[in-house]
Amino acid sequence: MTALEIQGEAAVKASRALAIASTETKDAALKAIAEAISANRSKWLEANAIDIKNAKENGMRESLIDRLLLNDKRVDDIVKSIGEIIALKDPIGEVIETITRPNGLHIEKRRVPLGVIGIIYEARPNVTVDAAVLTLKSGNATILRGGKEAFNSNRAVVEIMQEALASAGLPRECISLVQDTSRDSATELMNLTEYVDVLIPRGGKGLIKSVVENAKVPVIRTGDGVCHVYIDKDADLEMGAKILFNAKTSRPSVCNAAECAIVHKDVAADFMKIAYPMLKEKDVALRCDEESLSGLGSLADDKVTEATPEDYGFEFGDFILAVKTVSGVDEAIDFITEHGTQHSEAIVTENAETAAKFLNAVDAAAVYWNASTRFTDGGEFGLGAEIGIATQKMHARGPMGLKELTSYKYVVTGKGQVR
Amino acid sequence: MTALEIQGEAAVKASRALAIASTETKDAALKAIAEAISANRSKWLEANAIDIKNAKENGMRESLIDRLLLNDKRVDDIVKSIGEIIALKDPIGEVIETITRPNGLHIEKRRVPLGVIGIIYEARPNVTVDAAVLTLKSGNATILRGGKEAFNSNRAVVEIMQEALASAGLPRECISLVQDTSRDSATELMNLTEYVDVLIPRGGKGLIKSVVENAKVPVIRTGDGVCHVYIDKDADLEMGAKILFNAKTSRPSVCNAAECAIVHKDVAADFMKIAYPMLKEKDVALRCDEESLSGLGSLADDKVTEATPEDYGFEFGDFILAVKTVSGVDEAIDFITEHGTQHSEAIVTENAETAAKFLNAVDAAAVYWNASTRFTDGGEFGLGAEIGIATQKMHARGPMGLKELTSYKYVVTGKGQVR
Repeated sequence: MTALEIQGEAAVKASRALAIASTETKDAALKAIAEAISANRSKWLEANAIDIKNAKENGMRESLIDRLLLNDKRVDDIVKSIGEIIALKDPIGEVIETITRPNGLHIEKRRVPLGVIGIIYEARPNVTVDAAVLTLKSGNATILRGGKEAFNSNRAVVEIMQEALASAGLPRECISLVQDTSRDSATELMNLTEYVDVLIPRGGKGLIKSVVENAKVPVIRTGDGVCHVYIDKDADLEMGAKILFNAKTSRPSVCNAAECAIVHKDVAADFMKIAYPMLKEKDVALRCDEESLSGLGSLADDKVTEATPEDYGFEFGDFILAVKTVSGVDEAIDFITEHGTQHSEAIVTENAETAAKFLNAVDAAAVYWNASTRFTDGGEFGLGAEIGIATQKMHARGPMGLKELTSYKYVVTGKGQVR
Repeated sequence: MTALEIQGEAAVKASRALAIASTETKDAALKAIAEAISANRSKWLEANAIDIKNAKENGMRESLIDRLLLNDKRVDDIVKSIGEIIALKDPIGEVIETITRPNGLHIEKRRVPLGVIGIIYEARPNVTVDAAVLTLKSGNATILRGGKEAFNSNRAVVEIMQEALASAGLPRECISLVQDTSRDSATELMNLTEYVDVLIPRGGKGLIKSVVENAKVPVIRTGDGVCHVYIDKDADLEMGAKILFNAKTSRPSVCNAAECAIVHKDVAADFMKIAYPMLKEKDVALRCDEESLSGLGSLADDKVTEATPEDYGFEFGDFILAVKTVSGVDEAIDFITEHGTQHSEAIVTENAETAAKFLNAVDAAAVYWNASTRFTDGGEFGLGAEIGIATQKMHARGPMGLKELTSYKYVVTGKGQVR
C-alpha cells in the first residue's frame, strides 16, 4: 500500500467512528480545536513564518503572499469562526422523511455523513481549518491536500487539531494532511476511489478544471462564476445601476461578482448614462459592444473600449465589465446560456411576466429578480458557513453548507414482513 | 464535431425546452408515446424478431434471449407501466424550501431537472422505454446507449417515441439513441462532459464497474448488492428463518436479495435447524463456516459445503447462501462493513438496543430491523417507479424515483437589495 492508501484507510476507519459520534462529542472536539489553535498559535505562526520566508525567496506574488500570511488577528478570526460552526445545528441524524407503508413497514429517511471528503486547495492556511471543521461538524473525515507553499503552516495546524481530536476522544485521523506535496499526490488523491467518497476542489479555475478532468472520485465542482446582470426595458434604471455597481465592484475577485451587463437596446443609452458615472467611482473599465458604446456618447473615456468576443463569458475577477446590448429577454436568456457558468444570474425589471420567464428559463444555481448576484453565499442564504458554491447539478447546487455535506440512509422497521 | 457530439448538443437544446414544459405537455407526450407504442407494436416486434434471430445465430444464452425478447404481453405491460408513470406527481417546479431573509430577500429553493441523462445498458429493450419515460416525466432529456444485440428493437421504439414527442409539441431529441453500438461509442458517451449531466449505468456488475472507472461525466452507481441478514442471539428464530428464506429465494437474481446469513453463535445450531429445511424447499445450497456446519449436524447433506473466503462478499445471484457465525452484533457490523456493498442489510432481533446499534452503525442505503432486504425498491418504498437503486452516497441513495432525477435552483426575489 502507498502512504496515501494507508492514510485513506485510516480516514475511512475514523469516519466510521465519527459517523456515530454524538453532537456533544463533535462539538467538544471542535471546542478543543479552537482552544488548541488559540493556545498553540505560536507554533502555527512560526511554521507560517517559514512558509512566508520561502515564498518571498521564491518570488511569490504579493497578493498570494497575503493569502498565505497568518498573524494574530487572522488566527483570532479563524478561532472565532470555529465558534460559529459549533453553534450551527448538527445535520446528522435528522429524520428527513417518514413513510409508513400499507404493510406496516415504518421507513425513516435519516441524514448521515458522506464519509471521507478530500479537499484539494491552494496555499491558504485558513482553508485548512475552515474545511476541516465544517467536515467534522457534518460527521465526515477529511483528507486535506493543500498547496505546497503552505505545507509548514498546514502541518503545524493539522497536528494541533489532531491533538485536540484525541483529547476529545475522537480518532486523530478524522483530519489528516497529505504529506507529499508533489503533483503526484494530488493525482493519487483524485483516484483514491476506495477510500474517498467525495472530492471538493477549492481554488482558482485551473485547479478546479484539473480536478474535474482528472478525478475518478466523485467531484463537487465549485467556484467558477461568470455572472450577468440583465437590465430589461421595463427596469427601474436607478435600481439597475445600483445592483450592477454592487455586483461588479463590492468584491470583484469572488465568484458571485458580475462580469457582464446585458442591456435592453431600448434603454441602453439611458442606462449607461446612469450606470457609468457610478462605476467610474471605482475605476471600472468597460468592454462595450457597438450599441452600448454609442449609447455612452460623450461619456465614453479612455476606460471604455470595444469588446472582443473573448470578453464575453470571461471571468475578469477585476474592475472590468463587459457590456452587451440585446433586443429582449429571450436574447438575454440565450446569451447567458451561451456565456454563463450556471452560477448566479440577475434580471432587473418591473415586469413580473418578463421576470418569471427569465427566472424559469435561466439555468443557474441562483437566479435573481431585482437583487445583486453577490447574495449567493451560505451566510446570506441563512445556511450558515459554506464550504463552497457548487456550479453543477448533481448532489448539491449553490452554497454548500453542512446539509450539503451529507447523504442519507433508509432505516426500515418491521415485524417480520417479507415480500 | 463527432456524430455523438452533434447528438449531445441537440439533446441539450431539447432539454432546455423540456425543462420549462408544463406538466400537461409532458403528460400528453407520455400518453402519445404509450399510444404510439401500442399502435405501432408490429414495427417494434418485427425489429425485435431480427435481433432475436441474430442473437440465436450468435449463440446467445437462453436467459439473455429471454430478456431480449418482446411479445404482445410484454408490450402491453410496458404500455401499462407508462400509464403508471403519467399518474405520478410531476416533481419539477416543486418549492422544496422557502427562506425569507432579514433584508427582505425572498428565496425559493425550486426543483429543476438535471438536464441530459445518459443511460448505458444491456440488451433489454424494455429498459429503452422505461428509462426514456422516467427521465421525460422528470423533465430530463435522455441519450440512450443500449446493448448492440438489441439495436434493431431500440431503433424502432425510439423512432416511435420521437414521432410521439413531435406530435405532442416537444423536440424529438428529448429521447435519442446512440446509433453506433461499438465499444467506442460507450466510451465517448462516458466522456461527453460538455453535453451530458449525469450517467446512469443499468446492468450487471461488469458494465457498472466499467462506467464507474472510465466515465468523466458524473455517474450514479446502481445495482451491485451483496446483502446480509444477521440473526441475533435475541432473534425470534422463526421470524428470522422466514425473513432469510424470503430475502434469499423470492428472486435471487436481483440486487436486494440476500447472499449471506450471519448467525450469532449462541443460536446458530437452533437457527440452522429451523432455516435449512425451509431453504431446502428451494434447493438452496449452503456455504457454511465451521460453526454453522457443526450446528447443522445431521441435517447437513450434499447441498451443504464448507465456505471458502471468496464466498463472503460474493454476489451469487442464485440459490446459494453463504453462512457466517459471529460472536455478537459488533462482529456482525464489522463483517458487513468488510463484505457488504452498502445496499441493504438486515438484523433480526427482539432487542431494541442491539437493533439500534446495528441500524446506526451499518453503512448502507437501506438498513432493516425484522424485515426482508427485498423491500429496497421504489414501489415498495412508495416512491413510484424507479430507475435503479443507488449504492453510492452522493446525490441519491437507495431507490431512485422521479425526485432523485432532479436538481434544484435558488430563485431569489428582491426590491433592489445590494450587499
